[in-house]
Amino acid sequence: MTTITAVDVHDVRFPTSLSADGSDAMNKDGDYSAAYVVLHTDDPSLSGFGFTFTIGRGNDLCVAAAIQRAQPLIGREVEAIVADLGGIYRELQSDSQLRWLGPDKGVIHLALAAVMNAVWDLAARVARKPLWRLLVDMTPEQLVDIADLRYLSDALTRDEALALLRDLEPTKQQRISELDRDGYPCYTTSAGWLGYSDEKLRRLCQEAVDQGYKHIKLKVGANRDDDYRRLSIAREVIGWDADLMIDANQVWDVPEAIEWVNTLAEFKPLWIEEPTSPDDVLGHAAVRKAVAPIGVASGEHGMNRVLFKQMFQAEALDFCQLDSARLGSVNEIVAVYLMAAKFGVPVCPHAGGVGLCELVQHLSIFDYVSVSGSLDGRVTEFVDHLHEHFVEPCIVTDGAYRLPGAPGYSAEMFGSTIDEFSFPNGSYWSAPSAAVAAEDAPSVAEAADAHSVGVA
Amino acid sequence: MTTITAVDVHDVRFPTSLSADGSDAMNKDGDYSAAYVVLHTDDPSLSGFGFTFTIGRGNDLCVAAAIQRAQPLIGREVEAIVADLGGIYRELQSDSQLRWLGPDKGVIHLALAAVMNAVWDLAARVARKPLWRLLVDMTPEQLVDIADLRYLSDALTRDEALALLRDLEPTKQQRISELDRDGYPCYTTSAGWLGYSDEKLRRLCQEAVDQGYKHIKLKVGANRDDDYRRLSIAREVIGWDADLMIDANQVWDVPEAIEWVNTLAEFKPLWIEEPTSPDDVLGHAAVRKAVAPIGVASGEHGMNRVLFKQMFQAEALDFCQLDSARLGSVNEIVAVYLMAAKFGVPVCPHAGGVGLCELVQHLSIFDYVSVSGSLDGRVTEFVDHLHEHFVEPCIVTDGAYRLPGAPGYSAEMFGSTIDEFSFPNGSYWSAPSAAVAAEDAPSVAEAADAHSVGVA
Repeated sequence: MTTITAVDVHDVRFPTSLSADGSDAMNKDGDYSAAYVVLHTDDPSLSGFGFTFTIGRGNDLCVAAAIQRAQPLIGREVEAIVADLGGIYRELQSDSQLRWLGPDKGVIHLALAAVMNAVWDLAARVARKPLWRLLVDMTPEQLVDIADLRYLSDALTRDEALALLRDLEPTKQQRISELDRDGYPCYTTSAGWLGYSDEKLRRLCQEAVDQGYKHIKLKVGANRDDDYRRLSIAREVIGWDADLMIDANQVWDVPEAIEWVNTLAEFKPLWIEEPTSPDDVLGHAAVRKAVAPIGVASGEHGMNRVLFKQMFQAEALDFCQLDSARLGSVNEIVAVYLMAAKFGVPVCPHAGGVGLCELVQHLSIFDYVSVSGSLDGRVTEFVDHLHEHFVEPCIVTDGAYRLPGAPGYSAEMFGSTIDEFSFPNGSYWSAPSAAVAAEDAPSVAEAADAHSVGVA
Repeated sequence: MTTITAVDVHDVRFPTSLSADGSDAMNKDGDYSAAYVVLHTDDPSLSGFGFTFTIGRGNDLCVAAAIQRAQPLIGREVEAIVADLGGIYRELQSDSQLRWLGPDKGVIHLALAAVMNAVWDLAARVARKPLWRLLVDMTPEQLVDIADLRYLSDALTRDEALALLRDLEPTKQQRISELDRDGYPCYTTSAGWLGYSDEKLRRLCQEAVDQGYKHIKLKVGANRDDDYRRLSIAREVIGWDADLMIDANQVWDVPEAIEWVNTLAEFKPLWIEEPTSPDDVLGHAAVRKAVAPIGVASGEHGMNRVLFKQMFQAEALDFCQLDSARLGSVNEIVAVYLMAAKFGVPVCPHAGGVGLCELVQHLSIFDYVSVSGSLDGRVTEFVDHLHEHFVEPCIVTDGAYRLPGAPGYSAEMFGSTIDEFSFPNGSYWSAPSAAVAAEDAPSVAEAADAHSVGVA
């Protein structure tokens, strides 16, 4: 018998704002951050690692919320938890007092994601399998049991979910072999951040082509002339056989989105991503009708399965970009994959952040093998940032993710990374040069001690 | 010139779970709580008070988030802030790093509500007017400038909003006189909490009738037989001329909601409140079609204006129950009132919580005088709990809110209340009898100091 003895949650922040990595029309100065959860057990060789992703200030709120979310795990048997991964999810999720702060959205849901990602990592390590393998080895009944289907029965019943999974059972091995040979296709956002110069954009587009990418994504939405010029440069470099995607990061109202996107139609974008508020199901549906054949993509801010259900019901999306650290971990993600398969919408997960690539590779593999059985219209994001902080970083070659082989969810960071980038006391942030940034963003620890801030 | 010198945020919790006050099918043991903001100025006679409402655990997260949200106010001139209440809202709201944790939802949005509620209280005190009077004295242009209309232009343009407000300008005084005489009609939820015995339910229904209420609300959704019996008792006591509302607090999937509500149709409820996930616009629309003529009400968990926009566009609501401490204060609330008026949906604000009655009385008065000009189908919640903690409590007689006269937003609590119910160190919570509850809910201060919890 193994017991969870303690939970550490670290506030890890990387100073990405200094290089404009991650810059877009809405998020000009993000510091890629993780509320990083470590589940310790009384077996020194066994821990679980997970995180949620934020862009700086407020990461401390997710850390504090994760501490509360993880509380019920302490003292529990690992064997019992991994034997009922649906049960532990429902238990953590259903704290009714915390639920009031959502439900199922914002800080408390990001914190649930962080904690349950660590639980799933632990479960995969116990099984000595990479997470994707743990999932594809589950029976349809087991998968439907761990999936959070609450509030979804008007779109997908348990029986429909089972039928869908059973259909693909006999041919799973053949798809695993295919991915083992070819990898899972990905695209790169690394070239197109808004804060990059034209020269850097041109160079990075060329590098992406040289590396075998067939899809490239650019940020748009701050200035029309800039968008036109940057898209011209991108098409010059990548030609017209590769796919070009554009991403507005929620800056437009619905009528403005329609008008702006249509002025860029000559560049034949495959999709416009986040044209408006991520909560606006009907708005996305209206944009989609008005900009076709340009597709509509959204989901990195898709707060929960109920939002995605409506996106599918309203035919609002051509591409579903669920986020592995915003949805309530595998339990909620599997539910979204099942709905997407029923409604015929390809899932192309969001991965622009720290560690998200490491997580989504497992999910995309699982989707192809067990749920959708298709690669049509599917391409998973890859951003070439910050992988050096992970013990088992994702491997991308020739525009494809290679199958991860190590046990777990690939979520473990190096101890040296935690020591350096913990906020505000890690060696990076406590250095004098980081003092201004640290002052901008008071930690909860400081704030909660005082419960007060002032000029005096 | 007056300056904001400091901000205090208090974690105030009341042990309402001990008496089952506030109990319903989803929330069995809430401790009504407030993340309570005090804006101090260098004028000792001038402060601003505001809060958001939660039901216990996680209130500390809202406190910590409110500290971050309020940071930019410190050192600022009060005169400049109250002269541009739209500007300060947009400034606080648009912190792009915090925005990632929403946007506009969950803990960071509750915290924005708490801080901006205090700013509006301050503005009304500076003007020496109750908040409702500050609002009804604004010109249409001023109101549209403070309203957050972002993402709404496909449903309501600025010009439409102006036209709507201008229509009612000439007749405002007549409606003020009417409310001054009759008050604003309210209903009571105090009778119908799920944890009350049949005898207590019967007695409280009779008391409500005796006090002049013409609407009574009961919680349902935990058990069908119980619902049937409790509704029978209520109808026996209140008769068939009074209105009976029922509230399921989100416990059902859509098909289950439709079936369950229709089995209670013989009691002729005026509305079914929160039949399913509060995020489910299309689900509410489906329920509404299927249970008519029973109306559908929702909104206490309505996370932001974009959700309400869609509720109106999809014809999902008969009654809009916006929440004064969940939406981003007056700036976002005015936007929802304007949309509701355009779409012809009556707004009946949620007030089941601590201090919410004190806030919503101002909003309902403003709505009647300046926005909707109608009392048809409008009735505002009143719950007779915890008013003794407020310096200027709302006054309800003969089933109606009386016009508040004191300057401000009626949000100030007594210092003695803060001393007693601050969590975990107030005199109530630090008493030995409260130790178990306190242990259940570690504060952020404890959690953030350690960033770790464990059995050892």
